[in-house]
Parts: sequence; C-alpha cells; structure tokens
Amino acid sequence: MRIGVLGAGQLGRMLALAGLPLGLEFRFFDTTAEAPAGQLAELQVGSYDDPTALAGFAEGCDCITYEFENVPVGATRFLAERVPVYPPPQALEVAQDRVVEKTFLGGLGLPTPVFYPVLSKNDLLDGLERTGLPAVLKTRTLGYDGKGQRVLREQADIDPAWTALGGQPLILEGWVPFEREVSSLAVRSRSGETAFYPLVENTHREGILRQSWAPAPALSPELQAQAEAYTLRVLERLEYVGVLAIEWFQVGGQLLANEMAPRVHNSGHWTIEGAETSQFENHLRALLGWPLGASLSRGHAAMLNLIGQQPEAARVLAVPGAHLHWYGKALKPGRKVGHITVRADSAEVLAERVAAVGALL
Amino acid sequence: MRIGVLGAGQLGRMLALAGLPLGLEFRFFDTTAEAPAGQLAELQVGSYDDPTALAGFAEGCDCITYEFENVPVGATRFLAERVPVYPPPQALEVAQDRVVEKTFLGGLGLPTPVFYPVLSKNDLLDGLERTGLPAVLKTRTLGYDGKGQRVLREQADIDPAWTALGGQPLILEGWVPFEREVSSLAVRSRSGETAFYPLVENTHREGILRQSWAPAPALSPELQAQAEAYTLRVLERLEYVGVLAIEWFQVGGQLLANEMAPRVHNSGHWTIEGAETSQFENHLRALLGWPLGASLSRGHAAMLNLIGQQPEAARVLAVPGAHLHWYGKALKPGRKVGHITVRADSAEVLAERVAAVGALL
Repeated sequence: MRIGVLGAGQLGRMLALAGLPLGLEFRFFDTTAEAPAGQLAELQVGSYDDPTALAGFAEGCDCITYEFENVPVGATRFLAERVPVYPPPQALEVAQDRVVEKTFLGGLGLPTPVFYPVLSKNDLLDGLERTGLPAVLKTRTLGYDGKGQRVLREQADIDPAWTALGGQPLILEGWVPFEREVSSLAVRSRSGETAFYPLVENTHREGILRQSWAPAPALSPELQAQAEAYTLRVLERLEYVGVLAIEWFQVGGQLLANEMAPRVHNSGHWTIEGAETSQFENHLRALLGWPLGASLSRGHAAMLNLIGQQPEAARVLAVPGAHLHWYGKALKPGRKVGHITVRADSAEVLAERVAAVGALL
Repeated sequence: MRIGVLGAGQLGRMLALAGLPLGLEFRFFDTTAEAPAGQLAELQVGSYDDPTALAGFAEGCDCITYEFENVPVGATRFLAERVPVYPPPQALEVAQDRVVEKTFLGGLGLPTPVFYPVLSKNDLLDGLERTGLPAVLKTRTLGYDGKGQRVLREQADIDPAWTALGGQPLILEGWVPFEREVSSLAVRSRSGETAFYPLVENTHREGILRQSWAPAPALSPELQAQAEAYTLRVLERLEYVGVLAIEWFQVGGQLLANEMAPRVHNSGHWTIEGAETSQFENHLRALLGWPLGASLSRGHAAMLNLIGQQPEAARVLAVPGAHLHWYGKALKPGRKVGHITVRADSAEVLAERVAAVGALL
C-alpha cells in the first residue's frame, strides 16, 4: 500500500515515521529536493502546475494526502480523478480563503470573530467603523505562521498596514478579547468513524506557535464537548477524511473558531508520546478506512517548537520525559527545525520539566 | 551525526525509526539488498570479509553498531580501528560462543545451567552421565531462534541428535526445571550511566520467541534487583556500551543466565509504546554518550511476534491499545515479519486485549 503525500516537510516526514511500521510505503511530491521527508522515502521533485508530473506521481499510489494547506486545489482535483485524495479537496478550498472559511464555519453555526472582506481602502475604513479598534487585517490566502497579517491597535496603524498588505484580497477581523487560544484535533475515517483528541492550549509569539499544552490546563468536560460538537459539524458537512485541526479563541466558556487546517497540525505533535495513538498514525488509519486508535492523552504533555535554534541534544535529553524531534532541516533564523515534547504523569511535574527545557532555549 | 549499523534487518530498521527524530543519519551494511532497513536509509551491500567494503563503510560514520550477534568479530575489530564500535567487540566475542559465554557469566558469579563442552560423541556421553536426562545439546556458535539445538529427553534421542549436530563444537546443558523464562534489558552509556528496564516474561514455541509480557507478571522487587545486580557485573566487566539483553531461567526466586545478546532485542520491542524511552532510542543515546531516558514501563504491555503470517491490519488495529509493526519483509513460513504490541493501563485489561489479538493469529 503506497501513500502519496503532497509536500515533504516535517509533517510528511512524521507521517512516514508513523506509517512505515504499519507496512505502508510513501512517495512524496515537493518543489524542492531538500525537503526533509526525502531523507527517508521516495521524493519526486516537480511543480504543482505540471499535469504530467502529477499524473506520474499518482501512478502507483493507492491514496494521496497532503501535509500543507497551500497545495493548489486544482492539483488535488486533478489527482482525485485518478486516486482517492484525502482530506477532500473541498476542505482545502474552504481552508485556503479566510473569508470562505469563516463564512462556511459561521454557516454551520460555529461562532467566529466578526469579519469583513476587504478589497479596497474604503472597505477597510467601512469595516473598521463596525469592528472598532483593535482589529486584525489579514490576507485572505496563503497566510501561515503569522505571515500576511497586521494588528491595528490605533488609527496610526491603518495606513502602514494598508501599504503593506493592500492590493490583494484581505479580511478585517474584529479583535477578540480571548483568554487563551486552544486547538482541537479531530479525525474522521473513510468509514465515518470519528475520534477527538483533548483540546490543547497554544501560545504564539510573532505569529508562530511556540508551545502547546495537552490537555489544555483546567480543561472542562463542557468545553471539550463544545469543541467536539462544533468540529463534528465540519467533519460531516465536508465528508471529511483524515485529521482536521481547528484553532479557537476561548472567551469565558465559549469557543470562537479562528481557522482550520485540513491536515496534521503542529499543535498535535504532542500525540506522538502523549496519546495512545499519534495524530500521524490516526491520519493514515483514517485514509485507509482502518479503525481509529484511542485519542486519549496518556498523562500530560507539552510541546515546545524549536524555531531557528538547535539546543544541544544531550542537554535536552537530560530532562526526564523530554523527547527530541529534529526535522533534518538546515538551521535558519525563524525556521521551524524541530520540536521537543515533554511528558509527565502530573501537571505539576510537567511544569517543572518544561521550565528545565525552556531554560535551554 | 551518522550511525553505521551492521545488519539491516528489522532491528536496524527500528533503530533508524527511533534515531531519525533525534537528527541522526543512518548507513546500513548488509549482505543482501532486500534488507528492510534499506527502505528508509542508505544501505551498502557487501561482504563482512571484504576490508575495502568495510573501510568504505566506516568512512563518514561517527560511530558503528550492529543489530545481530553473528557479525564476524574480526570485522568489528577492523572497523573499531577506524571509528568507535559499540557494543565493544569483546561482548560480541563472548556472546558468539555458548561455552565462552557461560564460562564468562559463571566467572562473574552469575548462576548458569550446568554445561559441558562437547567435541566428540564420548564428550557427549560423559556429559550426560553428569547432567542426566533431559538435557539440551546445542551448537556453540551461530544458534538463534532455536536453530542448532536438540532436547534429549530419553536415550533414544541421543543418536539422532548427534547425527544432526555432531562434527562441530557443541555444548551440552543440563535441563533446568524453570518456572518461566524472563529477560532483562539493560543499557549502559559511553559515560558509564546505566538504566534497567523491568524484567519481561517470554514464551517460546519451536525455539522462537512468541510473546513477551512487560513487566513480567507478579514481578517482585527482589527478582528485579537480582537481575540488575547480575547484569551490572556484565556491563562493567565488558565496559559495555549500548543495550544488552540477557535471557534467564527463573527457578523459584533465583535467576539462571541462559544467554546474552549484545544488541537491541526482540523481547524489548514493547518499550516502543510501553516505556517512556524505547530500547532503540536508549541504545542510540548510549552510543553517543547522551543521557539515558527513563526505562520505567508505562502501564502494561505485551508483544506478540508475527511469524510467517500477516493478519489483516484493520482487524489488529480494531483492538484497543494494539500497535502494529510490520518490518517490510516478504512473507515466508517461519520468518519474523512483524510484531504487535498491546498496551493497557492494567494487567487485567491487557489480558483481554491480548486474547482479542491472539484470536486473529
């Protein structure tokens, strides 16, 4: 059974590490030969707008998935005429445009921040009259890790933001006075079976995820149930197959959907050591229609991203319960090059261990 | 950091799966191009008696280890002149000859079964006068998975056993009326740090390991302490680096050493899901002088070998807590092609789950 994966970054690499023990083979497609999944599986280098390359890639794959949400939807539809592509291209289409995404989520009854499509400076000013300040101006497409967005805190921020981002389709979002950011990780199999991981709490800096704590501290059964009920609507409407991540703002006992990612997700890396079944294995089980594995957490875990830095492995591993994941990428400032998951049986011990790892970063 | 591994079978493959996340690269050496670790890392095909091939292999490796104990000792000594080779070649030398091995272990004060070197039929008959029947006749070298041994239950078994095995150096071992077979898994780092996994109980059929239960049911702290104390003597005498497995017979509260394997071991596969740190990761940490990871079990685990059979993945994974490991080998009768680890938080639930998996085999 050979799985084709569009994109050969660290998510693809971790998919392969999870799937090789299951007897699966992998073939990756990427635009660059240095992509790290190529270090352990077949890698085809090509362009997403080259139908011959895509057709050649699909040949011999039993199923195709993707590891980043900026894959051209056209490429996935082209491939889907040949072999099953999961998650369904429609999920990709929804996730690639923040206005389409929030409209879709809102249509399913999920609360979202107030938002306005912005094509012109006038749209922006109109929108701001309704949101007030602060607000957030973002590109509708191709944004990730905080790229392509500006927070508007005061009047003086408006012009520079427009200069930086104007000229492309934008979205203006009302500021949410959130208590914290959490994310949900769900998986739905080709058979319709679903599983939900516990909500995790995420902290970002400079728009990039820095830490995820799982389960989210003080997670109430009510909040978990709310996330699962909302997510289930999305899974079912899209006839979704695979792992789906949704990032939420928590305001009191209420979740507001911020964005969704139709793929395995950085905030789910803790599942490798912290859950009975990792998000990577469950994604693969879902694609193949195999029974899903248990998604409960085993104890407590925290994931710390390694961004533009490579702490000494021996010092990291000296911390009990610390697990190092290096992605095989060259070190560059601002680049995600690895992560550390710290595990413990109690939240108290976890906090001590994370502090010890944090001191090395 | 590139690790060279002699042998590219399933143990090498699982070493690579554990080491890739640590940022390690792997280069395997094997006599056959179909060796399964070659599916995810560089594989050099060659002969262990070809110095040019070995020298070429060593070049660019920071450290070399091996995944089976029948590697010619000469090859490891040749390599050790170029790069560090762990476990030390002396450990290999001891483990490759059952008489040397039992003499060595006995010299350290470890109880072993009574044994006699057998070179002639007369030696055999002399030995039997002292051991009585039943007894076990084994080749001194190259035995594994029950190959090269015969149990002598009655007088009529002696001639056929001699016909089958005579003409090579043999060992006659007194029969041990053991209650069960257990194995210990220990690891010693280049820095001298040691860690011990809990003893596991093993069951064999036709000389091949079928199941390991971890921790061994009803494991007493005294038995664990006894195993650790004995094993520590071996680790220290050999200035050992890496994972060392020792198989024991348990008779009442006493352990008798049966054999040692200077490598990661089939009875330690449960550590992938069942311990905080797997034997594969700890073997690599030891070679590199990195701190060892916690070797405590997380709940209860049982490992079932897949020998000459491939149960349907979907049916295996339908059992909660079941984890499938397929080695990427062609299916052949009697061949170890994979294993299943079943995990549970209690011994009772584990037994139910193992029964469910067992029904598929």
